[in-house]
Amino acid sequence: MEEIRIKPIGVVHSPFKDPVGVPKDSTDGMNYRGTVEIFPEYKEGLKDLDGFSHIIILFYFHKSEYSHLIVKPFLDDTLRGVFSTRSPHRPNYIGLSLVELQKIEDNIIYIKGIDMIEGTPVLDIKPYIPEFESNEGIRIGWLEGNI
Amino acid sequence: MEEIRIKPIGVVHSPFKDPVGVPKDSTDGMNYRGTVEIFPEYKEGLKDLDGFSHIIILFYFHKSEYSHLIVKPFLDDTLRGVFSTRSPHRPNYIGLSLVELQKIEDNIIYIKGIDMIEGTPVLDIKPYIPEFESNEGIRIGWLEGNI
Repeated sequence: MEEIRIKPIGVVHSPFKDPVGVPKDSTDGMNYRGTVEIFPEYKEGLKDLDGFSHIIILFYFHKSEYSHLIVKPFLDDTLRGVFSTRSPHRPNYIGLSLVELQKIEDNIIYIKGIDMIEGTPVLDIKPYIPEFESNEGIRIGWLEGNI
Repeated sequence: MEEIRIKPIGVVHSPFKDPVGVPKDSTDGMNYRGTVEIFPEYKEGLKDLDGFSHIIILFYFHKSEYSHLIVKPFLDDTLRGVFSTRSPHRPNYIGLSLVELQKIEDNIIYIKGIDMIEGTPVLDIKPYIPEFESNEGIRIGWLEGNI
């Protein structure tokens, strides 16, 4: 299947300058603040986003230089299949963060709960829509007891 | 910022052959079943995934031929900024679905709650990890009252 080309729509500004020290789970990271600068040519697409309390950011792990199918996650000492983890060393280097939206000013989105580093290319923004009333019946595999 | 190149890691097999008739929200779609065929070279990365009840699929809206910054969503008659919607007509054509994982056999993931069409290229699989105990305090903007 052919290669797909995508273009960043913006860039993250973060208190974390490199991957060392970045919060490894949402509990650690929930208090850190940063911004997403949406490039001016995409700004119009932000209309109505400020009604949402939380947003999903898809981004590019631009510091990843290799990918493995089996990885050792931060939260565990056992080797795991990469698709059962949030490791940056995955095929396609695409990351996902759920963050709190604080405000939008012009083309700048102010967020809380940041776990991306300075300069991270942003690929997409989507509104967060809760899909479950509760966590009942949801199983989280090897993460059970690790988070 | 430079262009990013990504490669599909698999393909969706779906009861929906084209975008017409695809469920437009998760309530409609929760009963439809399909599979994700992970290409053999990525199969090893599926290890441990079967412990999770739900997974996030990132995919490519391969039938999208244009993108707009302002769109009319399916669930509303008002024009909205594309980043406040799940419209396929977005920059980068990247889609996200949360589905129920039923079983994995070899390189085939059996899923329930499919809203992608046959032949959809798959870009990444991530484990679903609930981030909130409840939906209290979560606001969903223009979707309030529409879903």
